[in-house]
Amino acid sequence: MSDTNVPPLVPREGWHVMHLFYQIDHSQWSLLGDDEKRAAKTRLTELVQEIRATKDTHLLTFAIATPKADIGFMLLTPDLQVATGYEKQLTLSLGPEILSPAYSYLSMTESSEYTTTSAQYAADTLIGEKGLTEGSPEFQQAMKEFEERMAHYLKHRLYPVLPDWPAICFYPMSKRRTGADNWYSLSYEARRELMSGHARVGRTYSGRILQLITGSTGLDEYEWGVTLLAKDTVDIKSIVYEMRFDEVSARYAEFGDFYIGMQLPLDELFRRICL
Amino acid sequence: MSDTNVPPLVPREGWHVMHLFYQIDHSQWSLLGDDEKRAAKTRLTELVQEIRATKDTHLLTFAIATPKADIGFMLLTPDLQVATGYEKQLTLSLGPEILSPAYSYLSMTESSEYTTTSAQYAADTLIGEKGLTEGSPEFQQAMKEFEERMAHYLKHRLYPVLPDWPAICFYPMSKRRTGADNWYSLSYEARRELMSGHARVGRTYSGRILQLITGSTGLDEYEWGVTLLAKDTVDIKSIVYEMRFDEVSARYAEFGDFYIGMQLPLDELFRRICL
Amino acid sequence: MSDTNVPPLVPREGWHVMHLFYQIDHSQWSLLGDDEKRAAKTRLTELVQEIRATKDTHLLTFAIATPKADIGFMLLTPDLQVATGYEKQLTLSLGPEILSPAYSYLSMTESSEYTTTSAQYAADTLIGEKGLTEGSPEFQQAMKEFEERMAHYLKHRLYPVLPDWPAICFYPMSKRRTGADNWYSLSYEARRELMSGHARVGRTYSGRILQLITGSTGLDEYEWGVTLLAKDTVDIKSIVYEMRFDEVSARYAEFGDFYIGMQLPLDELFRRICL
Amino acid sequence: MSDTNVPPLVPREGWHVMHLFYQIDHSQWSLLGDDEKRAAKTRLTELVQEIRATKDTHLLTFAIATPKADIGFMLLTPDLQVATGYEKQLTLSLGPEILSPAYSYLSMTESSEYTTTSAQYAADTLIGEKGLTEGSPEFQQAMKEFEERMAHYLKHRLYPVLPDWPAICFYPMSKRRTGADNWYSLSYEARRELMSGHARVGRTYSGRILQLITGSTGLDEYEWGVTLLAKDTVDIKSIVYEMRFDEVSARYAEFGDFYIGMQLPLDELFRRICL
Amino acid sequence: MSDTNVPPLVPREGWHVMHLFYQIDHSQWSLLGDDEKRAAKTRLTELVQEIRATKDTHLLTFAIATPKADIGFMLLTPDLQVATGYEKQLTLSLGPEILSPAYSYLSMTESSEYTTTSAQYAADTLIGEKGLTEGSPEFQQAMKEFEERMAHYLKHRLYPVLPDWPAICFYPMSKRRTGADNWYSLSYEARRELMSGHARVGRTYSGRILQLITGSTGLDEYEWGVTLLAKDTVDIKSIVYEMRFDEVSARYAEFGDFYIGMQLPLDELFRRICL
Repeated sequence: MSDTNVPPLVPREGWHVMHLFYQIDHSQWSLLGDDEKRAAKTRLTELVQEIRATKDTHLLTFAIATPKADIGFMLLTPDLQVATGYEKQLTLSLGPEILSPAYSYLSMTESSEYTTTSAQYAADTLIGEKGLTEGSPEFQQAMKEFEERMAHYLKHRLYPVLPDWPAICFYPMSKRRTGADNWYSLSYEARRELMSGHARVGRTYSGRILQLITGSTGLDEYEWGVTLLAKDTVDIKSIVYEMRFDEVSARYAEFGDFYIGMQLPLDELFRRICL
Repeated sequence: MSDTNVPPLVPREGWHVMHLFYQIDHSQWSLLGDDEKRAAKTRLTELVQEIRATKDTHLLTFAIATPKADIGFMLLTPDLQVATGYEKQLTLSLGPEILSPAYSYLSMTESSEYTTTSAQYAADTLIGEKGLTEGSPEFQQAMKEFEERMAHYLKHRLYPVLPDWPAICFYPMSKRRTGADNWYSLSYEARRELMSGHARVGRTYSGRILQLITGSTGLDEYEWGVTLLAKDTVDIKSIVYEMRFDEVSARYAEFGDFYIGMQLPLDELFRRICL
Repeated sequence: MSDTNVPPLVPREGWHVMHLFYQIDHSQWSLLGDDEKRAAKTRLTELVQEIRATKDTHLLTFAIATPKADIGFMLLTPDLQVATGYEKQLTLSLGPEILSPAYSYLSMTESSEYTTTSAQYAADTLIGEKGLTEGSPEFQQAMKEFEERMAHYLKHRLYPVLPDWPAICFYPMSKRRTGADNWYSLSYEARRELMSGHARVGRTYSGRILQLITGSTGLDEYEWGVTLLAKDTVDIKSIVYEMRFDEVSARYAEFGDFYIGMQLPLDELFRRICL
Repeated sequence: MSDTNVPPLVPREGWHVMHLFYQIDHSQWSLLGDDEKRAAKTRLTELVQEIRATKDTHLLTFAIATPKADIGFMLLTPDLQVATGYEKQLTLSLGPEILSPAYSYLSMTESSEYTTTSAQYAADTLIGEKGLTEGSPEFQQAMKEFEERMAHYLKHRLYPVLPDWPAICFYPMSKRRTGADNWYSLSYEARRELMSGHARVGRTYSGRILQLITGSTGLDEYEWGVTLLAKDTVDIKSIVYEMRFDEVSARYAEFGDFYIGMQLPLDELFRRICL
Repeated sequence: MSDTNVPPLVPREGWHVMHLFYQIDHSQWSLLGDDEKRAAKTRLTELVQEIRATKDTHLLTFAIATPKADIGFMLLTPDLQVATGYEKQLTLSLGPEILSPAYSYLSMTESSEYTTTSAQYAADTLIGEKGLTEGSPEFQQAMKEFEERMAHYLKHRLYPVLPDWPAICFYPMSKRRTGADNWYSLSYEARRELMSGHARVGRTYSGRILQLITGSTGLDEYEWGVTLLAKDTVDIKSIVYEMRFDEVSARYAEFGDFYIGMQLPLDELFRRICL
């Protein structure tokens, strides 16, 4: 993408994220000769390498379960001009109309408005709940740890590096605005309280589920995209089911469709989807 | 699938389940010569044999009524990597674009959270309701029978072996979260009470309807998949209709579309769908 | 269908019913030579004859108004194996991909649970409302007439013979389960009361509208299929409109799409849809 | 259509109405030679002439804005057999698969149940509101005018002749039956009162908007079709927007999609859609 | 378009607006030779130039993110006859079936009914809130500024000139009419009050977001189209998210899908979408 004259479209903070799910048109594919097929797979392989070599850019590749899609990509990169260029090239990489778009989603990484990251709040908590004396060595050590944890957390939300765990789940969601169940009519405090219960459930899956929530209000059909990475699909089913009893989901969440994939190196991925 | 280097993706408990419904593209099929058609049918037949020979793996094959689909498979197998591999191969088995996906569903077998399987509960019931003396021979015999029944029941839910009854029905469903009818805002006790009424209706169809409920929260569009096997379609119509008056369905259930199939050996299935 | 080894799938009572609506792919059709077109029409004509010659089997053929479909079949037959076989053959009868499925529906004939057919109820009514003396000649004559009428009515619902009136209307419907308008939370008595008002409206159209309600809970997307036959489309519009003010429709009915057809002999039907 | 043996299907009162919207398949069209294209356009032109020459039959032709459709027809004719025959011929007139159906709608002209046309009501109004003496010359003159106006109005509703104003808008609509907003649970008087407010708004657009409401309960997906003809699209936007504040729309109306067309003679229409 | 004999269809005030989003059919495109491709791109380039040279006519061209569309146009022009002609030509400009419509929208520019533009209101405000003396030099100066500002604002709404900011967002929306959340049952004053809060949020994005609201009641599926131009996609996400907490959105807004594009000169646009 280096020869383009288009100025970058990089957000003040965070990255653009695209989830790209395709079906293979095997009828078109079967018309290709062996050499053409090999060339097509090489082209996609090299494009994936080029994308992964781009600064601050990550690309996950995965097979998708059930015929609702075959192959999926999750692309994270700062510049929307670059993201769109890569997306159009990925779609065409195996030849025209081999990859037929099944579903796609545009979102951006964002920090959570409900995570209190202010030093003041942390200090008050340490003094009030833990009984530490302001300015004491224990207090200063605890504050330092808090700040590191927050910096790490924020960095993960805005500039995530995703693990290579085999199972990947994506779904979009919005908050409800219907009758008495109107999320956007609640106060900030009420929303933060509800979200903290949600986060508590999430923490019990630490080490088993890596969750990345990206924002898409104004960008795509729903308000958020949720990406879950897991080592066992049972954990995906459990965490989504358990959270559904949380008031924030029970009363306020609307879900789109769910897609389940398996992260695979490209050669295994080609074999899986019979290319 | 033995030559793959991909580590298995087997859940801690239960199996992955795929319902795969296809329409036949007879326009493409009619372009094949007789030899090609024979070879295609042999390829699907051998694949079905290979799948059925896989450890802990079951595959049902059936014709589907009305043009909304022609042929259906229900695949149960532990490893999602294997399941997806078989699924992509099944889709292609008759040649590229002969089987055109009409609907599919991903779920997992699971035990029911509402079936009390604890020995303590069983013991209390035997003492309280049946008037048995704790530790008496009758009590011990009853407890042994209870444990066997529970083990059998749990095994059926997690590792089911489905009978070859001719009629098969599949539909996905979710529990409602709308206004006053919010399943996920009910207490566990209230939900268990409602589910037990549902189960009572189910038991009156014992021997006529085999029902398998699999979980799909976080995996696919609805929260559960329901598979019914029957000897008479009237029983499918009756049980679903009768259960609809149950509060758990009347107030809390949302249903997807219903698919009706007929389990058939492959040669009869080919003849039925005019291959 | 006589050479099949598949055991029949015949319900304890009633027949299976399929509504099959297709669009003509004239692009494919135009590729056929005149001889092929003639042969295709002969094939469909002979299949229709074969189906109509099958025991307890009825087949209506009709043109459909507006491009949402061109040709429709309504098939009534006991065995679902036979029904599905005929359906797949009908779809292919004019050649691969000439008939493209636009909509289809699977249901079963059923008796109404709200029609009191018990002799006891009839006897009580005759004594209570008409003032007849139990066992008197008038009473016995009235009871005999009641039983004949009921037998005739039930036979029509379960084993209908439909008249050849020119206009045919089909639509699927369900009863609502939303908030205060939850049909399945009503008592049997309340439902019977509501249905009897509905039936009263229906009777005012006697001789102008033949209505057949078939059950599809657990079989297809809605809970019932409604087939109306009429001599004037105004009567179809009037009866559906008038019934909408009935509480049973106003508060409790959800309707699918409506299809209007014209029963035609095959040669006229071919001409109408430009084959 | 004169050589057909099918008995007509003409309603007791009113006409059948079809709205037919198509997209052009330019890929197919571009395969035709110049002679074939000319012949195709001549075929459609002659068919339009034939239809317009049919007794009591009207056909509007128009281009449609935005790619959701290209060409539209509105057909009014008594006999549904004839209407369907013309519709199938129109679809094929430019050759197989050139006109690809985008949307269609079937309805019938009908008189309004809320327009009081009874002489008794008119007489009471003249006496009560205008203070006329029953039987006086002024009274008799007013009654005569009333009857003429009603006859004219009714004739327009049942047997309309539509002006050639350039802008045409079509949308289908139903009345709501949800919770407290249930049109079909209102009394006739309440509905007539609400409709009269609606009509008052309509009259302020007299001379700028010609509105034709046709009934489709039992015939198509919604309960009515609305056709608006205008000289300025702003008037279409204004009347629909203004009426939305009317209680009858605000609380009780559900709208389908809106289509905007421009009435054009066929040669201009062909040029507009690049044929 | 100068050779047409069709009278213009120009609204009394404002312009017609079309949003046109297409996917590229690369399968068809790949069948073209290099010369044909060059000619196709030249044809589109010249058409864009012709459109932009038309009086009072603006055309934005942009690439669209994610495969839900590839290329987008936003066309503003007074005459709907001209707009439709250009639209059909744009669709075909690269050859038949290269541009496949993904989504489109028809609306019209309009002034806001909630912006009080009356001199009387302005005068009252200046006297009441600012304490100016009616007729004083300060008062007259303030009134003159007010009138210029209003004239400028109205002109922008009715005859907008859009900046070339890189990011463009389009979505359609309606106001709700459900239960207690019925926008069209509110008084004008209540609606104006709600809208003014909305406008306050909008003004905080001045210089970062250019928002154009166009009306489509009676013209297309929703009631308004919203076009946002921005220099940073984060601002699009922020303004739509922030406004969602406004009562006018929280309780009364229904949104369609969101499309994100990047304004590009045609040569860069062709490169981006791999033509």
